[in-house]
Amino acid sequence: MANPVLPSSGTLSPLGLNAVRLGAGFWGDRVTLDREVIIDHCREWMEREGWIGNFRGERPRRGREFSDSEIYKLLEAMAWAGHPGLPELAGIVARAQEDDGYLNTRWSGSRYTDLEWGHELYCYGHLIQAGVARLRTHGEDELTRTARRAADHVCARFMDTEEVCGHPEVEMALVELYRATGVERYLEMARRFVERRGRPALADIPFGRAYFQDDMPVRRARVFRGHAVRALYLACGAVDVAVETGDRELLKAIETQWEHTVARRTHLTGGMGSRHSDESFGEDFELPPDRAYSETCAGIASIMLAHRLLLATGDVRYADVAERTMYNVLATSVALDGRSFFYVNPLQVRTPAAPPDGVNHAAEGGLRSPWFEVSCCPNNVARTLASLAAYIATGDTSGVQIHHHTPCEIRHLGITLRVETGYPWSGTVKVRVVEGGGPARISLRVPPWADGARLSYGEVSRQVGPGYAVAEGDWRPGREITLDLPMKARWTRPDPRIDALRGCVAVERGPLVYCAESVGDDPPLTDMAVLPEEPVERVVDGIVELDVEAAPMSAGGDGWPYFSASGTPRADGASGVTTLRLVPYHRWGNRGPAAMRVWLPEGH
Amino acid sequence: MANPVLPSSGTLSPLGLNAVRLGAGFWGDRVTLDREVIIDHCREWMEREGWIGNFRGERPRRGREFSDSEIYKLLEAMAWAGHPGLPELAGIVARAQEDDGYLNTRWSGSRYTDLEWGHELYCYGHLIQAGVARLRTHGEDELTRTARRAADHVCARFMDTEEVCGHPEVEMALVELYRATGVERYLEMARRFVERRGRPALADIPFGRAYFQDDMPVRRARVFRGHAVRALYLACGAVDVAVETGDRELLKAIETQWEHTVARRTHLTGGMGSRHSDESFGEDFELPPDRAYSETCAGIASIMLAHRLLLATGDVRYADVAERTMYNVLATSVALDGRSFFYVNPLQVRTPAAPPDGVNHAAEGGLRSPWFEVSCCPNNVARTLASLAAYIATGDTSGVQIHHHTPCEIRHLGITLRVETGYPWSGTVKVRVVEGGGPARISLRVPPWADGARLSYGEVSRQVGPGYAVAEGDWRPGREITLDLPMKARWTRPDPRIDALRGCVAVERGPLVYCAESVGDDPPLTDMAVLPEEPVERVVDGIVELDVEAAPMSAGGDGWPYFSASGTPRADGASGVTTLRLVPYHRWGNRGPAAMRVWLPEGH
Repeated sequence: MANPVLPSSGTLSPLGLNAVRLGAGFWGDRVTLDREVIIDHCREWMEREGWIGNFRGERPRRGREFSDSEIYKLLEAMAWAGHPGLPELAGIVARAQEDDGYLNTRWSGSRYTDLEWGHELYCYGHLIQAGVARLRTHGEDELTRTARRAADHVCARFMDTEEVCGHPEVEMALVELYRATGVERYLEMARRFVERRGRPALADIPFGRAYFQDDMPVRRARVFRGHAVRALYLACGAVDVAVETGDRELLKAIETQWEHTVARRTHLTGGMGSRHSDESFGEDFELPPDRAYSETCAGIASIMLAHRLLLATGDVRYADVAERTMYNVLATSVALDGRSFFYVNPLQVRTPAAPPDGVNHAAEGGLRSPWFEVSCCPNNVARTLASLAAYIATGDTSGVQIHHHTPCEIRHLGITLRVETGYPWSGTVKVRVVEGGGPARISLRVPPWADGARLSYGEVSRQVGPGYAVAEGDWRPGREITLDLPMKARWTRPDPRIDALRGCVAVERGPLVYCAESVGDDPPLTDMAVLPEEPVERVVDGIVELDVEAAPMSAGGDGWPYFSASGTPRADGASGVTTLRLVPYHRWGNRGPAAMRVWLPEGH
Repeated sequence: MANPVLPSSGTLSPLGLNAVRLGAGFWGDRVTLDREVIIDHCREWMEREGWIGNFRGERPRRGREFSDSEIYKLLEAMAWAGHPGLPELAGIVARAQEDDGYLNTRWSGSRYTDLEWGHELYCYGHLIQAGVARLRTHGEDELTRTARRAADHVCARFMDTEEVCGHPEVEMALVELYRATGVERYLEMARRFVERRGRPALADIPFGRAYFQDDMPVRRARVFRGHAVRALYLACGAVDVAVETGDRELLKAIETQWEHTVARRTHLTGGMGSRHSDESFGEDFELPPDRAYSETCAGIASIMLAHRLLLATGDVRYADVAERTMYNVLATSVALDGRSFFYVNPLQVRTPAAPPDGVNHAAEGGLRSPWFEVSCCPNNVARTLASLAAYIATGDTSGVQIHHHTPCEIRHLGITLRVETGYPWSGTVKVRVVEGGGPARISLRVPPWADGARLSYGEVSRQVGPGYAVAEGDWRPGREITLDLPMKARWTRPDPRIDALRGCVAVERGPLVYCAESVGDDPPLTDMAVLPEEPVERVVDGIVELDVEAAPMSAGGDGWPYFSASGTPRADGASGVTTLRLVPYHRWGNRGPAAMRVWLPEGH
């Protein structure tokens, strides 16, 4: 089964890349862009930057200490995409492996001397995930052998120590390799890495041990904390271990941490992480729109985690958060042409950025960059899009569950379904039986915002609430199910405890977060408040944009920005009302340097 | 004249440490604490951490690459304070100096190979300032000779290159050495360092050249940007050069940059700097209370700059901002016992911090730390308090200008004035002639918040507005001037463009910013909104605290913190109204781990 995550048990079972074929549409188009542009873009940049050359032994070694992992993420992308360049690149990697399975272009002479920052096990994790992808899409070859040898080396070296890696990742990779091969020591190694953490296993660092989740045992934590990608990768590994070992306490612990994090440490876009200095979550309700970090990789990690929790529990809220993050972080990161990326995904940019020039040395930037000194995000986007079909639907002996509505064909239980929809622009989802048939329950996810959704098939037509709407029947070719999700722009307000968003509103429509964008001579957004009347839809090239009313805020003090006053300045509704065009957040920054904001001050 | 800044021209002339003697009171007590506790605290920690040992040649060398500068800041403090330990410490430093005047314990073998980050010229700057302090308080000795030799070395090495230091500081030091010695090449060297910057003179770095103000020539900039301490130190040097060379364009440029920065990039406390990742200003109106950086050293640098601009122009607004920063950043940094310090000074702390344990490896922390891996702040506090008397008053041939109201004696023009006041707790300032006499204009600053201030002397009693209130007369011992500054707590609102403060209010009283503090079992501040009725004063041990009405905010959504709702949740005035005690911001964190906030959500 061509699937990045294939648990041996759980409430739902993934269908995978062979059973779900994406067609032209929001996600299918991006998967095509990945196959045709993004993967080659990444390979070219890594050749240019010398990161591939490192494996060929070119000196001086170039790139950061974890750059090997970028080649492995790309190999995973190539495996899922069936990219013809894989064998050559896998061969370059394989030739750098040492006799005992050790493989790292940075630390070869000084193995495991800096577990806090060395990233060696993190790199193996990505290599192993690439190997699993290859095994499940192609079968054994040089890449799968390289990955197996690395995994065997890890087990031999670390099974009986108390060590862990400063960056979690190898845990979920080892569990997946166990799932793909049945070799139990991989699972046991993963279990030990998860359990060792936080006792503590690593040295203290200036950021504190919470940075790499070594401040307390995984099952004792109440919330995700520290470096967001590290925290979420660790949680993925913990869920995988919990599912395979039947550790319900551990699974429950991660569910609780997820709940707390989603309720208090998550941006409207689904993005996670608030701090730039240590790429960390920050505290409860610390959710600044301008300095949101919301790293693309943290968004991807959150999608990976939600998918695992969905499979384990069947709880729709995991699919809801995954969808939000897919449309508003994953889709935002990559430019429409597939050649530049956001590393951080803030919800507000005050000043249009200067166009990037070559490699971006920082994660920051109000414009997408073609490449970064730390280029986890482009490669992570590449492997995620390449395997995206695996996230769309699940199946069991009773039927199919469709979690994400996008044009595709789904084969399961001898029935082939064709999903046709203009989602997320339109809310009508048609599921037609095109081949085969028989009795089955076909479930379609109804998102929580879809008030008044309606499910129709055969003689049935009924209103359906949030969760899964189930069409039950004996299916034959030509039969059709229609799910109508009302797509009405809606105003959204923040929890009053989110200090940075007080007095602001945002607009959402369907799964999409919207934003105001100011490009070129557009009026700046600094002084603008919106009047929350009903937004007016404008369809531009098939994209739904929204017009809202806005008015300038009365200016503040002069010379000193704090003042005694009897009333807070407000938008002056009587004069100066203008129209503000909102665009889908994932499309911002594609028209050149821009100011942008998701959260808009509310006028009266 | 015992004075850290002694321009050869300018609107106002400083009086200095010999002419202004602080008595017991807000500042006098802190200066005593500095002399009796802080200076020794700093010396002991630097001995313990090995930073002094570096000068003795102890190996391995310890501390950061700029740790030499900490010993120099402390030497400056010792010079102003007349500390008996100075000669011994100066001797240790002198013996490390090389024959050609070069002196650095980190870079001795690889001089000037990393001007971006090496801090060698920065270190000289602090050494030279220490030398000037010694020259003006004591006369020539080993420390002044060491400083002169270093300055001569700098001139010989850098006069005809195009190089500058990544951290400005040497510029103002060289100008002051010129002022103290009359040697013109020091001024010329300073002028060239100021002019070279931004053409550019340094290599690009991941933070971008704006980090060290090398993105454009000093006189072309519109606002302070990049690393806040670097930006403000550079501005100090530029003002000094402008004043000594009569460069009115350069002076005007810095004034304009200051205006823009104060109007858009300054926290209510006077603190400057919003970003943790590069300790930088951030953009206009980017003023988060929780993640405010507001480094203590940036506050001190802002006081230094405002003092220079006040001397150059006589414009009261510089003294206003200096006062705000003195009471709310400088006084906040140091604990009441003088043994711990804030590095960053945020305006909101959500979660009480764990008590610090030894050296703080990060600048962050919700509690003061006894020492930091980067310990600029404690030493900077030490030298600033030791020379604080120099900031209090200025004098010219017509009289005296009192900028900061605190108990002291001022001698000028053969008249000795005694200032008696309980400021900032009380607003009554009495200036009595205690010795000498004659015709003179005695000016007292009236802060902008002092609505209804009144000046009385002899037969005169009149209301005075913001600026300088002038008492003119022929003074004789026993004559007295009374300035009454109404000390009424006031509610302050932010400019609506400051996104992070929308919907919040703060309380100020006189020059003091207040905050809510939650210690131990106090109710948490997370859910609390205030009702802006008149605060009730409570005097506790001579300290004015303020009671305001507050009510819990209605909770937000459950599980997901963003929701569709017809009304923003508000404080419920009908039920649950409670009293919230506000304390002066500079006193927060002295009672143990605490949550704190200056800006309070406004209820209705």
